[in-house]
Amino acid sequence: MTATAFVGGTVLDGTGAEPLRDGAVVADDGRVAWIGPASELPDGVAVVDVAGKHVIPGLLDANVHLVLDCEPEVLLRYAPGDYDELILEAAQVALRAGITTVFDTWGPLEALRRVRDRIAAGQAVGARIFCAGNIIGNGGPWHADFIGTYGELLSADTVERVNRHWTVGVGDELTWLPAEGVREAVREYIASSGIDFVKYASSAHAHLRFLALSPDAQRAICEEAHAAGLTAQACATSPEALKVAIESGVDLLQHGSDTGIVEMPQGTLELIVERQLPCVAFLMTDRRLATTNADYAGGLLLKMTLAKDANDRRLIDAGAKLMLATDGGVFRAGAETNPIVGARLEGDDIEVLLGKSHVYWFRAAFERGMGPMDALLAATRNIAEAYRVDDVGTLEVGKRADLVVLDGDPLADPDAYGRVAVVVKDGAIVDRERLPERPVLTAA
Amino acid sequence: MTATAFVGGTVLDGTGAEPLRDGAVVADDGRVAWIGPASELPDGVAVVDVAGKHVIPGLLDANVHLVLDCEPEVLLRYAPGDYDELILEAAQVALRAGITTVFDTWGPLEALRRVRDRIAAGQAVGARIFCAGNIIGNGGPWHADFIGTYGELLSADTVERVNRHWTVGVGDELTWLPAEGVREAVREYIASSGIDFVKYASSAHAHLRFLALSPDAQRAICEEAHAAGLTAQACATSPEALKVAIESGVDLLQHGSDTGIVEMPQGTLELIVERQLPCVAFLMTDRRLATTNADYAGGLLLKMTLAKDANDRRLIDAGAKLMLATDGGVFRAGAETNPIVGARLEGDDIEVLLGKSHVYWFRAAFERGMGPMDALLAATRNIAEAYRVDDVGTLEVGKRADLVVLDGDPLADPDAYGRVAVVVKDGAIVDRERLPERPVLTAA
Amino acid sequence: MTATAFVGGTVLDGTGAEPLRDGAVVADDGRVAWIGPASELPDGVAVVDVAGKHVIPGLLDANVHLVLDCEPEVLLRYAPGDYDELILEAAQVALRAGITTVFDTWGPLEALRRVRDRIAAGQAVGARIFCAGNIIGNGGPWHADFIGTYGELLSADTVERVNRHWTVGVGDELTWLPAEGVREAVREYIASSGIDFVKYASSAHAHLRFLALSPDAQRAICEEAHAAGLTAQACATSPEALKVAIESGVDLLQHGSDTGIVEMPQGTLELIVERQLPCVAFLMTDRRLATTNADYAGGLLLKMTLAKDANDRRLIDAGAKLMLATDGGVFRAGAETNPIVGARLEGDDIEVLLGKSHVYWFRAAFERGMGPMDALLAATRNIAEAYRVDDVGTLEVGKRADLVVLDGDPLADPDAYGRVAVVVKDGAIVDRERLPERPVLTAA
Amino acid sequence: MTATAFVGGTVLDGTGAEPLRDGAVVADDGRVAWIGPASELPDGVAVVDVAGKHVIPGLLDANVHLVLDCEPEVLLRYAPGDYDELILEAAQVALRAGITTVFDTWGPLEALRRVRDRIAAGQAVGARIFCAGNIIGNGGPWHADFIGTYGELLSADTVERVNRHWTVGVGDELTWLPAEGVREAVREYIASSGIDFVKYASSAHAHLRFLALSPDAQRAICEEAHAAGLTAQACATSPEALKVAIESGVDLLQHGSDTGIVEMPQGTLELIVERQLPCVAFLMTDRRLATTNADYAGGLLLKMTLAKDANDRRLIDAGAKLMLATDGGVFRAGAETNPIVGARLEGDDIEVLLGKSHVYWFRAAFERGMGPMDALLAATRNIAEAYRVDDVGTLEVGKRADLVVLDGDPLADPDAYGRVAVVVKDGAIVDRERLPERPVLTAA
Repeated sequence: MTATAFVGGTVLDGTGAEPLRDGAVVADDGRVAWIGPASELPDGVAVVDVAGKHVIPGLLDANVHLVLDCEPEVLLRYAPGDYDELILEAAQVALRAGITTVFDTWGPLEALRRVRDRIAAGQAVGARIFCAGNIIGNGGPWHADFIGTYGELLSADTVERVNRHWTVGVGDELTWLPAEGVREAVREYIASSGIDFVKYASSAHAHLRFLALSPDAQRAICEEAHAAGLTAQACATSPEALKVAIESGVDLLQHGSDTGIVEMPQGTLELIVERQLPCVAFLMTDRRLATTNADYAGGLLLKMTLAKDANDRRLIDAGAKLMLATDGGVFRAGAETNPIVGARLEGDDIEVLLGKSHVYWFRAAFERGMGPMDALLAATRNIAEAYRVDDVGTLEVGKRADLVVLDGDPLADPDAYGRVAVVVKDGAIVDRERLPERPVLTAA
Repeated sequence: MTATAFVGGTVLDGTGAEPLRDGAVVADDGRVAWIGPASELPDGVAVVDVAGKHVIPGLLDANVHLVLDCEPEVLLRYAPGDYDELILEAAQVALRAGITTVFDTWGPLEALRRVRDRIAAGQAVGARIFCAGNIIGNGGPWHADFIGTYGELLSADTVERVNRHWTVGVGDELTWLPAEGVREAVREYIASSGIDFVKYASSAHAHLRFLALSPDAQRAICEEAHAAGLTAQACATSPEALKVAIESGVDLLQHGSDTGIVEMPQGTLELIVERQLPCVAFLMTDRRLATTNADYAGGLLLKMTLAKDANDRRLIDAGAKLMLATDGGVFRAGAETNPIVGARLEGDDIEVLLGKSHVYWFRAAFERGMGPMDALLAATRNIAEAYRVDDVGTLEVGKRADLVVLDGDPLADPDAYGRVAVVVKDGAIVDRERLPERPVLTAA
Repeated sequence: MTATAFVGGTVLDGTGAEPLRDGAVVADDGRVAWIGPASELPDGVAVVDVAGKHVIPGLLDANVHLVLDCEPEVLLRYAPGDYDELILEAAQVALRAGITTVFDTWGPLEALRRVRDRIAAGQAVGARIFCAGNIIGNGGPWHADFIGTYGELLSADTVERVNRHWTVGVGDELTWLPAEGVREAVREYIASSGIDFVKYASSAHAHLRFLALSPDAQRAICEEAHAAGLTAQACATSPEALKVAIESGVDLLQHGSDTGIVEMPQGTLELIVERQLPCVAFLMTDRRLATTNADYAGGLLLKMTLAKDANDRRLIDAGAKLMLATDGGVFRAGAETNPIVGARLEGDDIEVLLGKSHVYWFRAAFERGMGPMDALLAATRNIAEAYRVDDVGTLEVGKRADLVVLDGDPLADPDAYGRVAVVVKDGAIVDRERLPERPVLTAA
Repeated sequence: MTATAFVGGTVLDGTGAEPLRDGAVVADDGRVAWIGPASELPDGVAVVDVAGKHVIPGLLDANVHLVLDCEPEVLLRYAPGDYDELILEAAQVALRAGITTVFDTWGPLEALRRVRDRIAAGQAVGARIFCAGNIIGNGGPWHADFIGTYGELLSADTVERVNRHWTVGVGDELTWLPAEGVREAVREYIASSGIDFVKYASSAHAHLRFLALSPDAQRAICEEAHAAGLTAQACATSPEALKVAIESGVDLLQHGSDTGIVEMPQGTLELIVERQLPCVAFLMTDRRLATTNADYAGGLLLKMTLAKDANDRRLIDAGAKLMLATDGGVFRAGAETNPIVGARLEGDDIEVLLGKSHVYWFRAAFERGMGPMDALLAATRNIAEAYRVDDVGTLEVGKRADLVVLDGDPLADPDAYGRVAVVVKDGAIVDRERLPERPVLTAA
């Protein structure tokens, strides 16, 4: 494999350094071999001319769900057995958009692992996957605390069969256990499951206000994660759940600005900023806010949305270490007619569309006054550091040669992130036109 | 193909004639070529010794649904595209039990037709199928007037997609039309659909008490059926709906003893008996009655069940021309955990199990005082005559050589119908052990 | 009691005669004693000066429900025992608005009868009431075919107790009976109930598309009504149900333009026009149509609304004998937050508000090109004739002195019907400020 | 008021002392003035002969709900305004059964306080009431976390109006607050509400597995209660919730043996026993266990019931300081037909019937091997001590003269507690025949 140079563009290396105009990046054997002024480009490399364009690291998304559309239509019809095809399709949708690494924070573990490993081994094309499997303590997509309606209306054996793909031994039954029981189950899960990081339920899922696991149990989970060399994160959706998670030792915050119908207490905010705890904020654009359904759930959704936006602004202003995330996945055409899933797909600039919503995130970041360079770091270096994945996130010699060439300046225009000219992963140019190779949900 | 003789058994030919002891039936080229005393058996035939057994015509079931288990689990998981596999499996379950001809009175038409034609052409093994497609005026399995719950909870496009397999242009929208509009739609349906007989909704389906189609519309449907040379039948579940159907000119009565929570008016009963209108009665055994859930639907189910049993007894006593039917189909293991379908699967000797429930029907017939020969005729000749299928139903020279060899005397013991030794269809011995060839719902 | 003369206004007598300018109407002993030019006014009468105003007959509403808001909040909290207070309040709300006579076409019979009789006897103030009690064949407000949700969620005994106030022996159980059984029950009901006219269910209620009673049963009901000297009417909501009702001999049509999602067949329309069958049309204003919830019930509501409006226009154009009706009643403040009732209260110019919606009706009539005089007749003479109540509806000597004085010309401006200056019932001026005397639902 | 002596019976004074045979208890001015052998009875007292009977202290119930039947039928029909009548009726039902003091641990505060004060002032007859008002953090009877179905189906304003009777400023909104916010709300509640003790939600209510309030919030509540001189208790329904409550400083345990589908961890059990933390155990009889609906909630109810019974037995064996409680209230006849409430009323020896279920509790205690004297203490002294009410619970000079005379020996036969001959409260004999004075729910 010959070395390839991307030459003539403005290079933003994801470290926060000044842009390098008329620069060049050389990829060799999957790694970044050289970066510098185009004028100093070493010989003997194949040249790809990217003059007039911008080169950034391959993007990371700190929170995706490669299986997200959990309608019966999808989980029974398109995935009667297991979910490999859906996952691969989603990983390709992400890659096509320039997201070269994704962190799947809740999904069907066995299939995720299989696809993850196939991609890592070069046997399949797609965004690089790191996965947590289940949110420890949660009961699967059709459990009463998720989309409970299906649990009530489909056959019990079907619901059980589907949920088991997610729970893998660390499901809702853990919420009944004393902390030491939780510890044991999690230890066993970590040892046997092949997960890349740990995520657990500080809050109940559908019943956002409640704590799913006690502080003792949360502490035990963090300790077990750390003992195994993994990072730990929590799903927290109320002020107290967030605080308990922080005190339990999580390494990064998911839903870090979700505190339900109230704003984040100042003390918690200061804690996040002082510790520079990496924090996912699902930033929403002004258009998003303007099209939020004010009647949904008796006005609760709007109230929560506004509280979250206020938190987001405060975190930005206070200099918190934020991370881009979309909570995104792939929905089939028709999902908007689903009585439950459809509600998530109403309005403009919605969050959960893998391959699209990250651009809305950048737009929202700009609108909310985040510095353009900070926005880029939030989508690259910050996430890599938070997850302790040391070979992605920046364009530095020795790191993986994941990069995106944009038709536009992402420091000037957030929509530039959506004008992808070239995606390179592990040094190879991605044939974006072919993706996804076998459309399932994205099929016409 | 050599002629084959089934020799030495007691032959009950389905005409009501006296049993022929030590008889023989010769099948040649798919037809009955000869019947007579074994002692007079012609030469040059292959002999199958059935001494000590009873030979009856292949059974007919006047009302089956080869797709009946309409859970999302089945219709999305096992039949993501179309239903051919489910239908073929069900046709083989029937055949294995000695039911050589079935009348599918509500099902997904295109798939039914395909499987029907493959079986008729000898390309597939299974019970001979005659089908009506939709119950004209009904809206498909997930319509509000069927299992409406699914219609409310699954995506609208999914519900619509599934329902359309059944409705085929003569769905619930017909209940809005004036009679002439119904007539036109039905004429077009008959002309283009390839159905074998016409069934329509005199009563609404879930809302049993209401009339779905007006008398004028019902008359128009019957006229169109007859003009096309087809028989017409109605689904009627209240006294007035039954009466309207009879007056509209139906050729046979489905649910002929279902009059809801009240007993059949005497006038209607007399009409049925005088005209010798072939009439399906879903006879229930004493065990069935004893295990009916007395609390279901606020006691309504029990009330209806008792009224039906009273009707059944009155029809038998009055000498009505009854037909065996099970309303049966194949359910997957696990269907009993379905919150809706499960209710149909509670109790003993339940009606809807294709391949089993016909034996309960015979048992109930005996318990209710029907003559054993009448019971046999109800499952053979009466059905063939009612549906005007003139080459099945009896063992007579020239008719199709469909026969069942029983280990027991069905005139003495109703359970003998369940002790099937040999099934012959179109003159060929069925390899019952192989059926169903590709288990889907019946898979372990 | 001295005779009182209303002098100087323009008199529209409800017969269709030319307006009498500067006229006078004399009421004496509750009846109209004299009508003529003010200049010829007899001596010895008390004079009320209505110069510059318009005098019309007291209005009639051909279809009201004095108990309409059937939330548990109302039926349990405000009417723990019976409904007299609610009914009287509603009758006073109507009277205050100039509606001097109402026809309650579905309500709790015993209470209706008591209030009707108290008003008739002069023991209470309110619009004159004629009532039908139950819609024969329907099962009460919380029956599965009405607001079935309550039937499923409240205690069975409570639901039964409430429904019985409506059903009074002619409830949903009639839909199970043969026609002769229906006839007997209705005969007994008419004989014992003290109703003023008969209404029955041609269509099911919530399940609009289905027939609740067979043509034979409908004919039997009409015959029994006529034999007892009562008019008969049907609730019909589909083309066939409407046609069956007409053929069964109803004297007037309720919901005469409701044919569901399809337009009225031309043949039916011609029948209505040729026979001059009095026909209720719930006319809707342009504003009403513009604010109909297009998403409700998957778009079904809108489709039905548009079909109805098309029917209304065709009936007007064809010269049908229409009647004003609102289907109206009184709702408590807060009813709009009810998940079920609330849907009826969305949008502008809604139909069901007693005391208000009749003005919208006139507005809609004008918008749809009905002649102003025809509109007035629709609210006066036509209804009296249809119900065969011969002493109301017009201002003619000998008739009841029910009149309304309007601040505006109702032939020029439909909103004039809402500018009520004086209401006179049975010759006496109504003290409108005092009404309703004991606010229950209308309480602040 | 002359002193009255109850003479000749066996006195069990509730201190655990040996039975005093042929004893006498003298009540004077509402207090116990003298206890001793009948032979030493002072002069000048009125004598009530209770020879052959047993005299015990008036019983206490550590957990009742004087408004428990929260059907719309009750809360809207029988209590359209407020709940005083229901509460008084329930207090009289309790008193009639010999329960002279009740602790209402969740109810509509204002009405409870009014009735409590009227009874305390001698203006009304009934069991002495101590009340907590709301379970802090819970949202009222029709909140989503209680009987959420009503919240979804009744008008929002009605639901809100009813719930507010319970929440009184410390409702579900507290679960969104940080601990300090909870502390402030609780301080204000204690200061202004007139409650007798504090109860809060350690667990969510319907969603038993989740924590409603964080440990920090729970600690804040206990501190505020103690600062105000009140006892604190928690509703805990999972092992972790129970442990958190204990560690937060509660003074007694409600639902002390409810740990959901798992048994109580041994460490927690030891903590309870060592600290002699007073602990409510809803003991269930063998008959109760045998008639628990094994299918309810997918078998969950049975699983929880069995775990609870195992906990109960372990607590008894280990010598925990148990308290009798019934969670009881009064249900109207007909409540068993309620689709939600009805489920609590199935089976034998059910817990929640005020005036009856305490006898089942004693029966269960005997069956589970609790010593008869311990059982008596659990219903008398233990509760008084736990709640720090120092003038009830035992028959000692100076304490309130609350006593029950039984036709049978409660140390030999638990059913003796149900054979009440005389009830004395504050020294006066209760006219049991007159109770309840104004039957509402208990009306025939």
